[in-house]
Amino acid sequence: MPPAYSLTYAQRAERHSNPAAKALLETIERKKSNLCVSVDVAKRADFLRVIDTVGPYVCLIKTHVDIIEDFEPALIERLNELSIKHDFLIFEDRKFADIGNTVALQYSSGVHKIAQWSHITNAHPVPGPSIIVGLSSVGLPLGRGLLLLAEMSTKGSLATGSYTEEAVRMARAHRDFVIGFIAQRRMDGVGASDVSSDEEDFLVLTPGVGLDSRGDSMGQQYRTPDEVVFESGCDVIIVGRGIYGKGNDVDTQTVQAQAERYRKEGWVAYEKRIARLS
Amino acid sequence: MPPAYSLTYAQRAERHSNPAAKALLETIERKKSNLCVSVDVAKRADFLRVIDTVGPYVCLIKTHVDIIEDFEPALIERLNELSIKHDFLIFEDRKFADIGNTVALQYSSGVHKIAQWSHITNAHPVPGPSIIVGLSSVGLPLGRGLLLLAEMSTKGSLATGSYTEEAVRMARAHRDFVIGFIAQRRMDGVGASDVSSDEEDFLVLTPGVGLDSRGDSMGQQYRTPDEVVFESGCDVIIVGRGIYGKGNDVDTQTVQAQAERYRKEGWVAYEKRIARLS
Repeated sequence: MPPAYSLTYAQRAERHSNPAAKALLETIERKKSNLCVSVDVAKRADFLRVIDTVGPYVCLIKTHVDIIEDFEPALIERLNELSIKHDFLIFEDRKFADIGNTVALQYSSGVHKIAQWSHITNAHPVPGPSIIVGLSSVGLPLGRGLLLLAEMSTKGSLATGSYTEEAVRMARAHRDFVIGFIAQRRMDGVGASDVSSDEEDFLVLTPGVGLDSRGDSMGQQYRTPDEVVFESGCDVIIVGRGIYGKGNDVDTQTVQAQAERYRKEGWVAYEKRIARLS
Repeated sequence: MPPAYSLTYAQRAERHSNPAAKALLETIERKKSNLCVSVDVAKRADFLRVIDTVGPYVCLIKTHVDIIEDFEPALIERLNELSIKHDFLIFEDRKFADIGNTVALQYSSGVHKIAQWSHITNAHPVPGPSIIVGLSSVGLPLGRGLLLLAEMSTKGSLATGSYTEEAVRMARAHRDFVIGFIAQRRMDGVGASDVSSDEEDFLVLTPGVGLDSRGDSMGQQYRTPDEVVFESGCDVIIVGRGIYGKGNDVDTQTVQAQAERYRKEGWVAYEKRIARLS
């Protein structure tokens, strides 16, 4: 079996058994977009406006619902409507990082009820496998998928070396629910023992993607879509303020032009990768 | 200078420069309690009832405000009133784990506005030092304190070895805001280089404390107050359901008897430690 990153998104969608991963791969293929926009704004109105503007260009919208000051349950209804209108999935970037019992409650309960609406969420592997067990007790029956943070793009990240290897091993042991990684590169073969990892298909979603800047003052570092998708073999590029600026004075045409620019760069890098490998 | 764990809480309160750490040490001394109760319930009414019941016995209440289904801003007012009535501090166990810019927003904003009311919060060191920079930009002007998760008590935790050492080095480089660790043992000397760490006083708060059980099905493991405070030299014991059960049928006398039992065990272990070392 060839490695996942040499197959088309459509081929991978056919083979994947997790409903959230399958839906994401199908959406990517259908929209010819491996672009995920990260919507980090604090006002409900800005949140919806940015999403409605970039919606046509993305496969996935990444949210931080816990930074929205004027959050109310009806916001989730609007988000779901936009998800259907523009055909994208939702990824609440919660970075769960607690013990199993606590994350199960954080995922299912509270004012945000993340499991009810977020097709994909993510977690740090640092607590050990119990975090996956806790989240999957809530998410698996709902057809959700989980990404593990195997690496981080910040300076001085501790998610390196044996930490990353352990994260991949944890994912491999829970392939029904763990659909991939937040990482800067493919994890195929990382931490693998004798057991073949040929049949695994973990999605790699990569933050820290930018075309016009190399970093910010808080330790974030940026790479281009070509570096991420073609050179490193990642599957989805995550872009934030590089597309919509501060989000409070969205000029539709400017933002859509930026979104289309990233969509195209990401897709071209993918086609280049497939052409080289097939 | 003798190591912090050989001093009394009162002596350490006098020396400490961070307002939240100083207030916590003073509260511990005043109430003769190094007990923190972790209140993990999903209903507002249960949350307030448990806190009002255990309040007289604790120095600190640990919250997961994001699991409360019927959260509303007025709940924070009630919590603040109880904090004054019973003389305890508040520790939102948020386990921040994102990049600097995002955690600053998660800490200050959203529906929960954690920085406004939580004297102490915590973070995973995994993103690197930028997470401290981001949180401290919000918390330091408010007199807040941060705990780093240097270790976790779950099975298969990845917070070990060089990860733990790096966490302690990050704390040492930000002693104005990082007041200690969530850990199972003292961190004095861990990851230390030539620079003397004699003058540092990091508080060690320890979860996974229980008198009647050794673990749960989701990977949590338990130790006794004596093991934690006397043998391992930790400063605050964190106890949850061992004190209040499910939290929805609180029998005041039973819960208070349990809280007093843990308070006493924790205090006796501390007095034993001081007597041995002084």
